[in-house]
Amino acid sequence: MTKEYSGVNWLPHISVDCVIFGFHENQLKVLLLKFKNTDVWSVSGGFVKSNEDIDQAASRVLFERTGLKDIYLEQFYTFGDVKRNHDAIQQHAKIQEKIGDSGVDTSFLSDRYISIGYYALVDFSKVKVSLGQMSDKFSWNDIYDIPPMFLDHRAIIDRALERLRWSLDQKLLAFNLLAETFTMSELQQVYETILGKKLVRTNFQRKILSMDILVRLEKRYLGGAHKAPYLYRFDAKKAKAYLSEVEL
Amino acid sequence: MTKEYSGVNWLPHISVDCVIFGFHENQLKVLLLKFKNTDVWSVSGGFVKSNEDIDQAASRVLFERTGLKDIYLEQFYTFGDVKRNHDAIQQHAKIQEKIGDSGVDTSFLSDRYISIGYYALVDFSKVKVSLGQMSDKFSWNDIYDIPPMFLDHRAIIDRALERLRWSLDQKLLAFNLLAETFTMSELQQVYETILGKKLVRTNFQRKILSMDILVRLEKRYLGGAHKAPYLYRFDAKKAKAYLSEVEL
Repeated sequence: MTKEYSGVNWLPHISVDCVIFGFHENQLKVLLLKFKNTDVWSVSGGFVKSNEDIDQAASRVLFERTGLKDIYLEQFYTFGDVKRNHDAIQQHAKIQEKIGDSGVDTSFLSDRYISIGYYALVDFSKVKVSLGQMSDKFSWNDIYDIPPMFLDHRAIIDRALERLRWSLDQKLLAFNLLAETFTMSELQQVYETILGKKLVRTNFQRKILSMDILVRLEKRYLGGAHKAPYLYRFDAKKAKAYLSEVEL
Repeated sequence: MTKEYSGVNWLPHISVDCVIFGFHENQLKVLLLKFKNTDVWSVSGGFVKSNEDIDQAASRVLFERTGLKDIYLEQFYTFGDVKRNHDAIQQHAKIQEKIGDSGVDTSFLSDRYISIGYYALVDFSKVKVSLGQMSDKFSWNDIYDIPPMFLDHRAIIDRALERLRWSLDQKLLAFNLLAETFTMSELQQVYETILGKKLVRTNFQRKILSMDILVRLEKRYLGGAHKAPYLYRFDAKKAKAYLSEVEL
């Protein structure tokens, strides 16, 4: 009982939505796509092939939009209210009017979908965005500045952020958003933008160093040498040891 | 594109599975159902009606099996590997042979399903189990003693337990498994069985009391009065204040 489209068999009523987070200019950003000729934005979504794991479908969608493979991707929640469908029928009529006559079949937009949400953490500098056939623009938006979104995509972003906050310490995720080496101040900025609040520098530094998950490297010389900050590298092995020791 | 069965329209390829946890005899237990005339066990599953939210589907399944409404139910993960389907085809052939001739249509068992996992925390003493038409037996199994399970239901239980452990402090869930009043020792037993390890009594007591989420009541008199333990009651309002204060 699958649905053929572009020569592929898709599972009906099931979609995946990927919330793609990056870190740029001291801000957590999310990648948004705009439906052609409309003001409606969406996260990166797609469907599931009949012979494909849902995790594979999410990886494929991510690769199609960003050109990236093997990056941090976590399933966080599945969205399945009936109301999604009512909203879709209404929004579809408007989108169909704007982009339907360009030969793109948008009829599937008005079906009921149970959407499995994933979030990805990417190194912002490595992303090369490919627009799909439904979109004419992309944007890396500040997570605290989200435009009107398709269906419940705003709720999907909010919940992805909630999970990211929750997993930040539990899984030590912040390092996925940084380059290989970074200063303590850059790490603190990642935490601050994700948590949405300022942290006290000395407390933050003490907390992070007490975890013993970083390797301290040389200083980063920028000119005025006496103020040069140390560079650090995340040590996955130490992190594993730390996580296995965390107790009640 | 729905599938009619017993006069109801169901979404194809989508199921919900509820892992029902209870606390009894100092142990965390999980409710299992056995397929008729087989040795194959499952958690409580069901499908999603075309006009039903997925959360409603999970609540309905829970109510059908336990007679309980308005209890703690949390979506924790969605299982969608293709391999589930291959396993289903093999297991279905055996189950069909055993129960198919009793007039029950089991053909849907061999379809591919994306299953949305929920776990429930119930007061063990209030559950009245109703077997469905597929099962001939139920059992409350110790979570560390699980028999051979249908499909990936063992993995579903393991991941539900992992989430429960994770949420234990984050959402103060242990109290859903206890009666309205309890001793500190009973609370410690809930934590110990969920976490799968012994805790130091003094540390546990200090930690819990420091949260300021309990109200201390009278002592529980059992006879030898000088050893009588205090009874406590969980205070949802205090808990809310505590959770909103928890910081990085």
